[in-house]
Amino acid sequence: MMRSAPKYLVPVALLALACTLVSAYDPSPLQDFCVAINSSTSAGIVCEWKFCKDPKVVTANDFFFPGLQIPGNTANRLGSNVTLVNVDKLPGLNTLGISLARIDFAPYGLNPPHTHPRGTEIIVVAEGTLYVGFVTSNTDNKLFTKVLNKGDVFVFPIGLIHFQFNVGKTNAVAFAGLSSQNPGVITIANAVFGSNPPINPDVLTKAFQVDKNVVNYLQKQFCSDNRN
Amino acid sequence: MMRSAPKYLVPVALLALACTLVSAYDPSPLQDFCVAINSSTSAGIVCEWKFCKDPKVVTANDFFFPGLQIPGNTANRLGSNVTLVNVDKLPGLNTLGISLARIDFAPYGLNPPHTHPRGTEIIVVAEGTLYVGFVTSNTDNKLFTKVLNKGDVFVFPIGLIHFQFNVGKTNAVAFAGLSSQNPGVITIANAVFGSNPPINPDVLTKAFQVDKNVVNYLQKQFCSDNRN
Amino acid sequence: MMRSAPKYLVPVALLALACTLVSAYDPSPLQDFCVAINSSTSAGIVCEWKFCKDPKVVTANDFFFPGLQIPGNTANRLGSNVTLVNVDKLPGLNTLGISLARIDFAPYGLNPPHTHPRGTEIIVVAEGTLYVGFVTSNTDNKLFTKVLNKGDVFVFPIGLIHFQFNVGKTNAVAFAGLSSQNPGVITIANAVFGSNPPINPDVLTKAFQVDKNVVNYLQKQFCSDNRN
Amino acid sequence: MMRSAPKYLVPVALLALACTLVSAYDPSPLQDFCVAINSSTSAGIVCEWKFCKDPKVVTANDFFFPGLQIPGNTANRLGSNVTLVNVDKLPGLNTLGISLARIDFAPYGLNPPHTHPRGTEIIVVAEGTLYVGFVTSNTDNKLFTKVLNKGDVFVFPIGLIHFQFNVGKTNAVAFAGLSSQNPGVITIANAVFGSNPPINPDVLTKAFQVDKNVVNYLQKQFCSDNRN
Amino acid sequence: MMRSAPKYLVPVALLALACTLVSAYDPSPLQDFCVAINSSTSAGIVCEWKFCKDPKVVTANDFFFPGLQIPGNTANRLGSNVTLVNVDKLPGLNTLGISLARIDFAPYGLNPPHTHPRGTEIIVVAEGTLYVGFVTSNTDNKLFTKVLNKGDVFVFPIGLIHFQFNVGKTNAVAFAGLSSQNPGVITIANAVFGSNPPINPDVLTKAFQVDKNVVNYLQKQFCSDNRN
Amino acid sequence: MMRSAPKYLVPVALLALACTLVSAYDPSPLQDFCVAINSSTSAGIVCEWKFCKDPKVVTANDFFFPGLQIPGNTANRLGSNVTLVNVDKLPGLNTLGISLARIDFAPYGLNPPHTHPRGTEIIVVAEGTLYVGFVTSNTDNKLFTKVLNKGDVFVFPIGLIHFQFNVGKTNAVAFAGLSSQNPGVITIANAVFGSNPPINPDVLTKAFQVDKNVVNYLQKQFCSDNRN
Repeated sequence: MMRSAPKYLVPVALLALACTLVSAYDPSPLQDFCVAINSSTSAGIVCEWKFCKDPKVVTANDFFFPGLQIPGNTANRLGSNVTLVNVDKLPGLNTLGISLARIDFAPYGLNPPHTHPRGTEIIVVAEGTLYVGFVTSNTDNKLFTKVLNKGDVFVFPIGLIHFQFNVGKTNAVAFAGLSSQNPGVITIANAVFGSNPPINPDVLTKAFQVDKNVVNYLQKQFCSDNRN
Repeated sequence: MMRSAPKYLVPVALLALACTLVSAYDPSPLQDFCVAINSSTSAGIVCEWKFCKDPKVVTANDFFFPGLQIPGNTANRLGSNVTLVNVDKLPGLNTLGISLARIDFAPYGLNPPHTHPRGTEIIVVAEGTLYVGFVTSNTDNKLFTKVLNKGDVFVFPIGLIHFQFNVGKTNAVAFAGLSSQNPGVITIANAVFGSNPPINPDVLTKAFQVDKNVVNYLQKQFCSDNRN
Repeated sequence: MMRSAPKYLVPVALLALACTLVSAYDPSPLQDFCVAINSSTSAGIVCEWKFCKDPKVVTANDFFFPGLQIPGNTANRLGSNVTLVNVDKLPGLNTLGISLARIDFAPYGLNPPHTHPRGTEIIVVAEGTLYVGFVTSNTDNKLFTKVLNKGDVFVFPIGLIHFQFNVGKTNAVAFAGLSSQNPGVITIANAVFGSNPPINPDVLTKAFQVDKNVVNYLQKQFCSDNRN
Repeated sequence: MMRSAPKYLVPVALLALACTLVSAYDPSPLQDFCVAINSSTSAGIVCEWKFCKDPKVVTANDFFFPGLQIPGNTANRLGSNVTLVNVDKLPGLNTLGISLARIDFAPYGLNPPHTHPRGTEIIVVAEGTLYVGFVTSNTDNKLFTKVLNKGDVFVFPIGLIHFQFNVGKTNAVAFAGLSSQNPGVITIANAVFGSNPPINPDVLTKAFQVDKNVVNYLQKQFCSDNRN
Repeated sequence: MMRSAPKYLVPVALLALACTLVSAYDPSPLQDFCVAINSSTSAGIVCEWKFCKDPKVVTANDFFFPGLQIPGNTANRLGSNVTLVNVDKLPGLNTLGISLARIDFAPYGLNPPHTHPRGTEIIVVAEGTLYVGFVTSNTDNKLFTKVLNKGDVFVFPIGLIHFQFNVGKTNAVAFAGLSSQNPGVITIANAVFGSNPPINPDVLTKAFQVDKNVVNYLQKQFCSDNRN
Repeated sequence: MMRSAPKYLVPVALLALACTLVSAYDPSPLQDFCVAINSSTSAGIVCEWKFCKDPKVVTANDFFFPGLQIPGNTANRLGSNVTLVNVDKLPGLNTLGISLARIDFAPYGLNPPHTHPRGTEIIVVAEGTLYVGFVTSNTDNKLFTKVLNKGDVFVFPIGLIHFQFNVGKTNAVAFAGLSSQNPGVITIANAVFGSNPPINPDVLTKAFQVDKNVVNYLQKQFCSDNRN
């Protein structure tokens, strides 16, 4: 049956697969490692296969990512910058359930309210002073906050809205571990007011109980052209 | 090394893959979503790849399935009909660990004893009156039953044998959530007496402690040709 | 050694446990079922132990919850109401990884933008017409929307912000399955502008790039006293 | 607040917990081991707490179970006997996701059609010749069978109905690994025809499309008094 | 868009995938089974795809592995031999979270200190007398040991260093279940002193607090050429 | 029924529970958080219950751990020091599947070959230069090494033996994320040569193919009295 499959089938089948990732999960792996193959460079198709690289050609570089000593650029309207080293940048993380980030803050810089839909975050402050907080779910929407100084560690549980604010007069830097190879980030303001296309203003007007002008204004601020 | 791989290799390798699904699991996903690609239409090969569709071409329709307002056809010998919306019908369910079903019952219709090997079922009765039950495992084979009316909710734990019986004089309808993108169904009578090929009658005679004639009769009832 | 433990030890140890839930998870259970014991009624201590009830005293009622035929009260400023049947209401759901909800909408009622940090949601429309949508994470904050009529099914992937809006002139009703015994709900407006205590207005002013007056106004709207 | 809790609270709270198992799961543990404490001997209450024993008093015996060299008693109507070493017999298995069994067969002995709701089974034949099989779920209810001799290994996937039949003239013995600390067993005939209380005969008559007399007869065979 | 993809793209993309395994995990499967396709024979490329074989061509042999009645060859310097039946030998194990092994021991044969990074091991002694043990992690590095005779069962928790030593004058045999389709084995002496290339002797000298000569000697013993 | 339970039952039952941890797992939590209660101080019994603290009395401090700015003391024979912030030190980590560590190295300090049985490790170098490596399992015992400078990130896959060696002339510091609330550490030399009680020297002599004197010497070095 298979023998008679016509030749032109192959490209068809392959392109039907198109691109993007095989479904995979963060729990325990089935082999020592499975270095992701990101075939994005092959002839212009942006793919994100998370197949395993042949172990015979895996090298130490597959588990390596350089450059976190370099401060992220905080010259933006929020005054903060996140450099996330997830599986897209460090293919050796595939199937291993963890990633790492450097977060830079200009004075008064803010990492605005956001969630990680697939990961808990644990941070340690390397420099400066951060006012951090998270809000619990609807049971009580309780806010937990803390001012963190150099060497302080704090945890933001998976899926909860949280923020980090540099309340010091100097730059601040934190390192964070996240409990997924691809924890994801949803910045609330961007997702709600800057989605593409925009959410129907009637929905937002009712949801936030504000005048349509305010919603209008917010949607202008966060439309993708105006974000920075 | 790879460079010298001969051209005809490609079809060979691809066909070796043949069809069907990459192993995947119900726990937490690794990206916002991974819409399954069911390449079953590509040139006659029935495949069930659960690769992710390129997010760039994913649309709202990938998360959508219409038609559950239409009653299932209960004109069969059991007087019941299950319309299961699992990942095969709603590709956006891939990696998300849930599915949904509509179950219709004619008067005295029965959804006969069955198990879901990969999912717990929670139902809500939309119309009518159902007598439902499940049996625990061998520790005590305890039967739990309940008569459910409109608006009542009931849970059937994963892997346990359960049934739903319309004890009212009118049609009944229930909606069910199931805790897997593909919970599976094993109808006991069909699997035991109607497998293909049939189970050796000696096994069934001994297992059910009945005369060979009874086993014979049952195997005739449930052979795939006679099911309806 | 244990024998000599003084009598007064017992209350001490027990109170040290205080209340609330043993950590547990949604994956596969270790027994047929584990009906949660909610000892909240014992002498005034509100506890949420998720111990298993003795199987010998478990009855069918532990897997049963009545009343979803009754419309939720939508006489509130959003015009919607969610009746969630999770493990707190249906103790038999414990360890089984699923829950169910009825969602009611008055005409133009809105289930405002929210996330479920621990569950995917699959809905079926039982009555009316809903405009629904969800937004992906920061990669592109893409909005997916669809108008759903009676019998239509739609999926909202775990952790993503989504909403449902009754765009019809009549009441609407939907049933939803959720992939956790306790999926959680975070209503964005409430968590961001109505947390208790409120988030520092400097954080919100910077995050939403708005005037302090707007933040002030929003925080007044959503402070817990003013929510309805 | 806690200080004022009256003394009689303690027994109340504890008894509210009553007995039985904390919900726990088979995936990766959180410590080297967690030897289950089965407090079943404490003053007549049969409990099944799966708390961890204090590591300081754990000994090698907690990981040990003797006696599998002794053949199980096959002098029963099926001519087979399963000795399952699960967490109830070997407390050191707690949280470790595996168990082991010895299965004995008299000549023509049968381990009748059954499922393990929480585990895959892999067997190796130590003595004799077994005819084994399993049936897939409703997609096609396909039967896979094989005759196994000494040293042969076979796999029965989780949740599927399977059986083992000694087709040799001598005793047979097999050892099995199961992928859960408590895989559970549901013997189909017992659960369907021998539940306690019995399933409504109308349900079984319709499900198996047989005369009420046959159902009657079967329910008599498998009522718990008549099983052996 | 896809239509214009040039023909030569296919081989490129495929070879970029190269070989080896899709990341997959031990938890609950998404279908009745997913028989692994090991495309290792296709034209000289050693691959380890764990795609699912088309269910239509799956046979009972995919769940079958013969030969464990044959003693492993113990004529080596350790006097032991492990025959592991994992997913590479029994493709039907794919996604099912379990494997099985036969372990043979000559008199005074040793299965030397090793770990299974992805599995707990439960053994039953079929013949002979074994002295077995495992060591806990750094909290206290406690050694648990037991002498096992025929029919005795013992558990080695996931990830802990353990060994089995034949202290009898006759051959010994054990069967083991392991809680992963591919549990992995790390023999301590081989990994530490026989890695390829060798670990820098300065590291080992300091780690084991020994003279460089001892490290030298050990590295010679365990270099891959000298292992037997 | 419960009312008649005699008073003395309570201490009995409670002490039967004794101490230590409820089995729990790293996957997705069932509530926003479950702050661990470590009742170790209650009247002299060292317990490690991982019950959830009553959410009403949880504060931001439960998610906070200070002091990682302070270098660990490296004045020991290895010249290194690991400060691990796991669930025992930061109770808010309970159920969240992540922990964090600071690792200090004196010049030529070594974090010797070890495994984490329950976690992958991702490190970023904050100061200095480290030579790091890990060895794969028995398939090939391949060594992967890399010299890391400030800002470099590297991954050590779960369960594999790895080490970090300060090859610079100055102190070095790294921060690490680990993919478990309690990843565990097994230092190879300590577990093999310094277990308590010691492993039978016959086992080690055969395993490492060395003279009994060498094993003797090593066991003296690593017996718990001599470790520093």
